[in-house]
Amino acid sequence: MDLQAIVDDIVRELEPRLGEGKVADYIPELAKVDPKQFGIAITTVDGDVFTAGDAATPFSIQSVSKVFMLTLALGKAGEAIWKRVGREPSGTAFNSIVQLEHEHGIPRNPFINAGAIVICDLVLAGYKPKEAIGEFLRFVRYLADDETISIDGAVAKSETNTGYRNYALANFMRSFGNLHHDVDHVLGVYFHQCALSMTCAQLSRAGLFLAAKGADPISGYSVVSPKRARRINALMLTCGHYDGSGDFAFHVGLPGKSGVGGGILAIAPGKASIAVWSPGLNKVGNSALGSVALEMLASRTGWSVFGA
Amino acid sequence: MDLQAIVDDIVRELEPRLGEGKVADYIPELAKVDPKQFGIAITTVDGDVFTAGDAATPFSIQSVSKVFMLTLALGKAGEAIWKRVGREPSGTAFNSIVQLEHEHGIPRNPFINAGAIVICDLVLAGYKPKEAIGEFLRFVRYLADDETISIDGAVAKSETNTGYRNYALANFMRSFGNLHHDVDHVLGVYFHQCALSMTCAQLSRAGLFLAAKGADPISGYSVVSPKRARRINALMLTCGHYDGSGDFAFHVGLPGKSGVGGGILAIAPGKASIAVWSPGLNKVGNSALGSVALEMLASRTGWSVFGA
Amino acid sequence: MDLQAIVDDIVRELEPRLGEGKVADYIPELAKVDPKQFGIAITTVDGDVFTAGDAATPFSIQSVSKVFMLTLALGKAGEAIWKRVGREPSGTAFNSIVQLEHEHGIPRNPFINAGAIVICDLVLAGYKPKEAIGEFLRFVRYLADDETISIDGAVAKSETNTGYRNYALANFMRSFGNLHHDVDHVLGVYFHQCALSMTCAQLSRAGLFLAAKGADPISGYSVVSPKRARRINALMLTCGHYDGSGDFAFHVGLPGKSGVGGGILAIAPGKASIAVWSPGLNKVGNSALGSVALEMLASRTGWSVFGA
Amino acid sequence: MDLQAIVDDIVRELEPRLGEGKVADYIPELAKVDPKQFGIAITTVDGDVFTAGDAATPFSIQSVSKVFMLTLALGKAGEAIWKRVGREPSGTAFNSIVQLEHEHGIPRNPFINAGAIVICDLVLAGYKPKEAIGEFLRFVRYLADDETISIDGAVAKSETNTGYRNYALANFMRSFGNLHHDVDHVLGVYFHQCALSMTCAQLSRAGLFLAAKGADPISGYSVVSPKRARRINALMLTCGHYDGSGDFAFHVGLPGKSGVGGGILAIAPGKASIAVWSPGLNKVGNSALGSVALEMLASRTGWSVFGA
Repeated sequence: MDLQAIVDDIVRELEPRLGEGKVADYIPELAKVDPKQFGIAITTVDGDVFTAGDAATPFSIQSVSKVFMLTLALGKAGEAIWKRVGREPSGTAFNSIVQLEHEHGIPRNPFINAGAIVICDLVLAGYKPKEAIGEFLRFVRYLADDETISIDGAVAKSETNTGYRNYALANFMRSFGNLHHDVDHVLGVYFHQCALSMTCAQLSRAGLFLAAKGADPISGYSVVSPKRARRINALMLTCGHYDGSGDFAFHVGLPGKSGVGGGILAIAPGKASIAVWSPGLNKVGNSALGSVALEMLASRTGWSVFGA
Repeated sequence: MDLQAIVDDIVRELEPRLGEGKVADYIPELAKVDPKQFGIAITTVDGDVFTAGDAATPFSIQSVSKVFMLTLALGKAGEAIWKRVGREPSGTAFNSIVQLEHEHGIPRNPFINAGAIVICDLVLAGYKPKEAIGEFLRFVRYLADDETISIDGAVAKSETNTGYRNYALANFMRSFGNLHHDVDHVLGVYFHQCALSMTCAQLSRAGLFLAAKGADPISGYSVVSPKRARRINALMLTCGHYDGSGDFAFHVGLPGKSGVGGGILAIAPGKASIAVWSPGLNKVGNSALGSVALEMLASRTGWSVFGA
Repeated sequence: MDLQAIVDDIVRELEPRLGEGKVADYIPELAKVDPKQFGIAITTVDGDVFTAGDAATPFSIQSVSKVFMLTLALGKAGEAIWKRVGREPSGTAFNSIVQLEHEHGIPRNPFINAGAIVICDLVLAGYKPKEAIGEFLRFVRYLADDETISIDGAVAKSETNTGYRNYALANFMRSFGNLHHDVDHVLGVYFHQCALSMTCAQLSRAGLFLAAKGADPISGYSVVSPKRARRINALMLTCGHYDGSGDFAFHVGLPGKSGVGGGILAIAPGKASIAVWSPGLNKVGNSALGSVALEMLASRTGWSVFGA
Repeated sequence: MDLQAIVDDIVRELEPRLGEGKVADYIPELAKVDPKQFGIAITTVDGDVFTAGDAATPFSIQSVSKVFMLTLALGKAGEAIWKRVGREPSGTAFNSIVQLEHEHGIPRNPFINAGAIVICDLVLAGYKPKEAIGEFLRFVRYLADDETISIDGAVAKSETNTGYRNYALANFMRSFGNLHHDVDHVLGVYFHQCALSMTCAQLSRAGLFLAAKGADPISGYSVVSPKRARRINALMLTCGHYDGSGDFAFHVGLPGKSGVGGGILAIAPGKASIAVWSPGLNKVGNSALGSVALEMLASRTGWSVFGA
């Protein structure tokens, strides 16, 4: 299978559609991004890398970062985290607050905003916000084997100034006792986590452990146990695309996590880690062309967790 | 891998827990079932069959039948069915009506009651209720390669007399124009479909095509295309266990569909079709011991769609 | 105060606006009504009657009938009815089912459809549907002192054939055990109750007891106790206009009950009973011009329960 | 009618029940209040005052203050405020956020927390928080004709430190653009408004204009127009007791506004302004004994807006 030809084809075929979807405009910094960009990168479990398009352009990975922060939190607090966040698809938008009221401040899963905020609260235990952010950054750099990865301060600041919905979610959970730290501290970590800037190449590399039973197949180091890797993949598949998770599973058939910056990380267990990026979003908040690209890739490679 | 030893061990280990959970009591006929039963059957893509416990006892498969009716409807109406039913997890109980009001009569997926009722309406097109029921029964007998499979008339009648919630769902969708046939006709089909009586052995055989790229590996006949088989598996994984779908994916890692009769059909793509049965249900309405058994099986076989 | 001049003025001033709003079209028979009609009738506690416009034209009073059926039910079952229906505004549309799921089949108040259906179920106790309908008709004739009042069979049949939403509500409540009789029987009573055909003159006469401490000031007979009359007025004020009840109280300041046929009954305690009718509805389902007319009337007469 | 005898009787009859209900504990300062207190004060439109029990003990009027802040906002911004807040009962708890999401940041009425926060935002226009608080305090002192009325700084601080739910509501509305000022500024005003400390005697005096067509019958000065007074009364009746408004109208039959400090202000138009206070709350958050006392008073005086 010629993966380079496949990604080249995808870039060529999508070229006329560049600019489809709607760039996230509720975070002012993100609204400035040129929508006519598309990148894709595949890192296989054998360590081969295939890239095409704007795969070397850094973008704000936003909620894709929730995968890495969840991994970090599981390492620190273990399965006890599930007392404070669920594992079920939400059936609602990424920033909905309705479910939180009905379910007394316990978010449905760690990949919607409310759930990711609880995860930040867990990671803060015993740390100052700056320390927690530092630890997170070091972890992602380690996963991607790339010390140049950084957090975009302008994006973090932009969200800090305008992220009223996240302040609402955090205060709401605090009122139910499901945040233990100061709301500003927790959101400080959350906004910096979301402001992580990565290229498709870096992102696909960072996610590789999830395709390889929890260990980095290149360095050989274990990141998480095989069981935990499977479970993170399961959460990505059922909850990784907000209220478009079912559709993504139906069309692509791979665990994935999207961000409003237009990035998606997808995992083909035993085969590869894939990152795509295109800023325009579909109506449920996932990259429009990114989703299309992954469906093309899954179809052409036969990669699907649901059968060849 | 000694599958017979594995299923024997599971039966032995679960023996002390027989009777856990709560038998569905809202359908009077189901409430009569002895809760201390457990069966398991595996049919591999090579045609081998491994059974243990009460694998030869017929039980009411209830909502597991939705997998087969969906397959039938896709064969008749194709992808056009997705105009009338969604593909997203509901985030609510199997019989919730709230989402239907907010989303104007379009059920979230074909595996909650409302969605399955729409599927029955689709299958009724051009048929009388009895004909549609007959066609469905012939289809399941064909899949299971067993002409003795039948519908339990007492269960169907029991649901017809007491299924007020389903009458509510059907009339509600009718008010939005998303049922095209007489409510009594549609529910006649639905209640008979749910009253299908099968053993674990028959059920695992009937689901085998979903483990084998859409074709029956024993007869060699194609049931659906490989792509459609993958998509049905995807729907089972994201939506097959109502508001416990995320948890099932997390713990078991296989596409599955449960029924309030206590049965679960699970698919290990490329490997096997598995049926378990134990009447006691957990709090989201899925077989308590059946879920545990599948987690044990997945752990011991290494079967998971999310990585070995 | 020259009430005749006031109602004449209102008719003259509204003349250019005849046809405003949208005639209810979900009941086919109602959709046939000429929208350019308007009538008003006032019956004072002294027995004087003032009418203008189409006050002698019969129309389908629809949900206005819920006031009379509630009165009948209170007479039969007393305050025990409040175990099965609430007394709070719903904050939702007249036919919403969402609240019923969240509150386990107990409707918020007797003036939304679900609540009125429970009231019919209460009135059916010990009776056949025809008997209950007969009793209701006799009661309204007695209140209006007019034996010519009748039920429009075509409207009742029209609702029976198309009232899917009401079938949904009834079956839903039945599933929670909050209907004790056959759904078809309960809805038979409900649809016939709603199909009551009355003129503004008859309607204002029938409601007079509510303006006069529960007794008919003309005949002198007591219908309900003064306390019960006050309570029915309170329910009309807080719940009588569905999700427009607050606005009606704000603008008109009188207890009132609207129907989708375009009628409204309003009560000025100690002064008069008023009926208006115009078929076009506003967006919350209340007569558009009827609401305007009552605001004009309240303003010109100084009738308001909230201060002169 | 011997009002003094009536209030004395009420105090005597309620004596054995002192302590009923549950003191609000989510505001730490309020949790410290002795629950075994009850006070009542009536100020008639003739200027007579009747008090009994703990009518001279200051308490935190909390949400009762919303009546006065709404009056102030209407004076400043007029009917334009209704573009940013509704006039309908909410059908939900006082601090629910669900409706806000469904209705895009527009609160249902000015007497639930979200609505009152919007009112504070309106009053802040052109002012600094301290100025707005000062203006509000002067207004209430003017209404009560009592310069000793003050804001309890400890209560305001207690709410500032723990009012997460209100921070959530405010940030949520800010995300929809329905707050124009800094969240901390708006809530600063809100928390100080709620921390107003008054006795029953002062409170009944301050509300007198609502019983007297908008003018203070003692000084003769106009506060609002008669029409506006009627409308504020209408809002109190339909929305003044959160999700217990219907019940309060049913049992008491007077416009009223409750607060979680255990106070209730009730208006008998044309007759009197009444204040009651007892800290224990019923399950919808209104003073348990206060509600009972007002029902007794209404019954014994015949004061009801729904007929004598």
